[in-house]
Amino acid sequence: MDDIAASAQPLNAGSGDGLVRRISLLGATGSIGRNTLDLIERHPEAYEVVAVTARTNVEELAATALRTRAEVAVIVDETRYDELKQRLAGSSVEALCGVDGLVEAAGRPADLVVAAIIGFAGLKPTLAAVDQGATIALANKECLVAAGSLFTDRAETAGARLLPVDSEHNAVFQAIADNDEASIAEILLTASGGPFRTFTYDDMKSVTPAQALKHPNWSMGAKITIDSATLMNKGLEVIEAAHLFPVGADKLGAIVHPQSIVHGLVRYIDGSVLAQLGPHDMRGPLSYCLNWPRRAPTPCERLDLATLGSLTFEPVDVERFPAFGLALAAMAAGPGMPIVLNAANEIAVEAFLEGRSGFTEIARLVERTMNRAEAGGMVETPADIADVFAMDEWARSQARALVNEF
Amino acid sequence: MDDIAASAQPLNAGSGDGLVRRISLLGATGSIGRNTLDLIERHPEAYEVVAVTARTNVEELAATALRTRAEVAVIVDETRYDELKQRLAGSSVEALCGVDGLVEAAGRPADLVVAAIIGFAGLKPTLAAVDQGATIALANKECLVAAGSLFTDRAETAGARLLPVDSEHNAVFQAIADNDEASIAEILLTASGGPFRTFTYDDMKSVTPAQALKHPNWSMGAKITIDSATLMNKGLEVIEAAHLFPVGADKLGAIVHPQSIVHGLVRYIDGSVLAQLGPHDMRGPLSYCLNWPRRAPTPCERLDLATLGSLTFEPVDVERFPAFGLALAAMAAGPGMPIVLNAANEIAVEAFLEGRSGFTEIARLVERTMNRAEAGGMVETPADIADVFAMDEWARSQARALVNEF
Repeated sequence: MDDIAASAQPLNAGSGDGLVRRISLLGATGSIGRNTLDLIERHPEAYEVVAVTARTNVEELAATALRTRAEVAVIVDETRYDELKQRLAGSSVEALCGVDGLVEAAGRPADLVVAAIIGFAGLKPTLAAVDQGATIALANKECLVAAGSLFTDRAETAGARLLPVDSEHNAVFQAIADNDEASIAEILLTASGGPFRTFTYDDMKSVTPAQALKHPNWSMGAKITIDSATLMNKGLEVIEAAHLFPVGADKLGAIVHPQSIVHGLVRYIDGSVLAQLGPHDMRGPLSYCLNWPRRAPTPCERLDLATLGSLTFEPVDVERFPAFGLALAAMAAGPGMPIVLNAANEIAVEAFLEGRSGFTEIARLVERTMNRAEAGGMVETPADIADVFAMDEWARSQARALVNEF
Repeated sequence: MDDIAASAQPLNAGSGDGLVRRISLLGATGSIGRNTLDLIERHPEAYEVVAVTARTNVEELAATALRTRAEVAVIVDETRYDELKQRLAGSSVEALCGVDGLVEAAGRPADLVVAAIIGFAGLKPTLAAVDQGATIALANKECLVAAGSLFTDRAETAGARLLPVDSEHNAVFQAIADNDEASIAEILLTASGGPFRTFTYDDMKSVTPAQALKHPNWSMGAKITIDSATLMNKGLEVIEAAHLFPVGADKLGAIVHPQSIVHGLVRYIDGSVLAQLGPHDMRGPLSYCLNWPRRAPTPCERLDLATLGSLTFEPVDVERFPAFGLALAAMAAGPGMPIVLNAANEIAVEAFLEGRSGFTEIARLVERTMNRAEAGGMVETPADIADVFAMDEWARSQARALVNEF
């Protein structure tokens, strides 16, 4: 991509160049945050930690802040602010709380901000990090799915570079390297196919949350694991890809690859395909973001294709996995519809996990909410971030009402 | 590679930029030459043909020269010079002949020279092309296997850029893109495994030339097809890779991949692997060389992984395919030994094709010639190209004598 992958400007650091990189971790106690800490704590000489944040886990947050000698620690849950202050007493770590504290910390000068807060809550602090022009290792889905070009335009204006953390987008980013946008014929994200890859649609009608939570390759949170089972996750990722790699929606797609070894593929106009492969370890893409445009050694297991033996591929079946098709339809409908899709999906997944609706009803609920949005003229292009929040709220309330009708 | 892949200087042309690229084809009537012509004749506005050459096929050479309005046509077989002149009579195409004519034509100013003459005969004209500082689309194995750093040093001195045509090296070149040499942990070339991939060593003792000439994926000349069956071809390619991608011999290897869809892989120090995939069509890598550092559309079939279904990988078994191990040993022994390996192999393959020795005797003959070279102190580092020719001659005569002993 001209605006993303090409014209590499080395950041102020990374292993091997002897410089120190100032880094902030928005969401330090989740999976992405912990994996990032694992990498940077192996090279304390290369990183200076600016901010670490957590939603509720004050104990781990304080320990992390003390261990990494962070400048500031933010607990979003204000009821735990006193505990944070107590735990940090006597150290040089500043304590902040709430969304205001989060946004303040995200705006502190840093070379690299790892944006790993889950959900809509990640949007405001990531925007604060974008506005200061930091390089963003982006792990938050909503910034692209919901805010979309409002987010990418703001990054461009501020000169903030976006590096995708998600293994699929990171793979595509690597496979594009210095190729220009015009030479790209197709971008394919791989999908494991989830636990119901071989199920019929009727089989899926009766699956339980426990069955859906068994992801074949990755250990992730409940929401994203269900999204992997419906293939909504892959649909949301295609929408993200459309913002990260603006080659046109017709050139974006997905392919089922049960082993999840190949993470993404880029086919060029000359017929050549470049693919990125890697072990099931988020430290791979994270290390790429931390050291970009260079690379540094990681503790990731070595990929051994001869031992793996076989990599298989299948088309995505939108008949059995309608959520994927709904995501593509939302993308085609314009920037408002993915907000509706994402919001309705969250409500539907919640209802499924709580036993209030069935697995196949997730996509049905999303579709019905999208239909309501279209009928009600509720999918105008959002003019600003406030609009995005309003549309999200509207879609959630519609979806909640619809759940009760099932 | 710092010296090869990075710091892309656009050539004076390529489809899409409106400029005209001056191109010479050394070996215009072979498979590489014909495929190159297929590509450039689709875009006559983008190419100006300087020289076309052939060893003996005067009819096709003359027709090609007239059709492409080449400046000069060279027939290496001097007995056919009169026929060439007759066929070109009345046209503006100049006719030359012999090795001198070949070298003269290769030295004519061109932006890109496709070096596709097979065997030792390709060395002198390719050097002439290198000396004028042209970009070289290199399809001749001996330039790297035999001349090695004499060749690459001369390219560097002249500012000639080497673009590998071979699908495996071209794949690696693409998978390296703008990554720096220090970040490379391993380079793997893929091997189809040839027609005897599943044979025991004892099974291979009795195979016939007809069996060995049935390559599963590619239609190539007899010599290279036998080399694919012994896996000597892959060994020679690893030696070539050592010169094209100087990351150290310990980081170079091969992996058996029967479908030949993945052509090469590069593993980086962070665990990430970039692979290049493509259909079985030499026009893919050739187009990449013709348009580098850009890409242009080709008539290559679209790669469809979902239809292919499965890609499989196995380790190379050096017990059953000792030729591969011999090539690695020759590489480790220093710049003289690959000359001996290559020369002995040509004699051994010839003997096998003519029914004078068995299939498994190919590697045995190569090994015995290498042993003689070592015992006789005949593997000094060649000081110049004349030395290379002398060592090649010595090894051939030794191998010929040894064949008669079997």
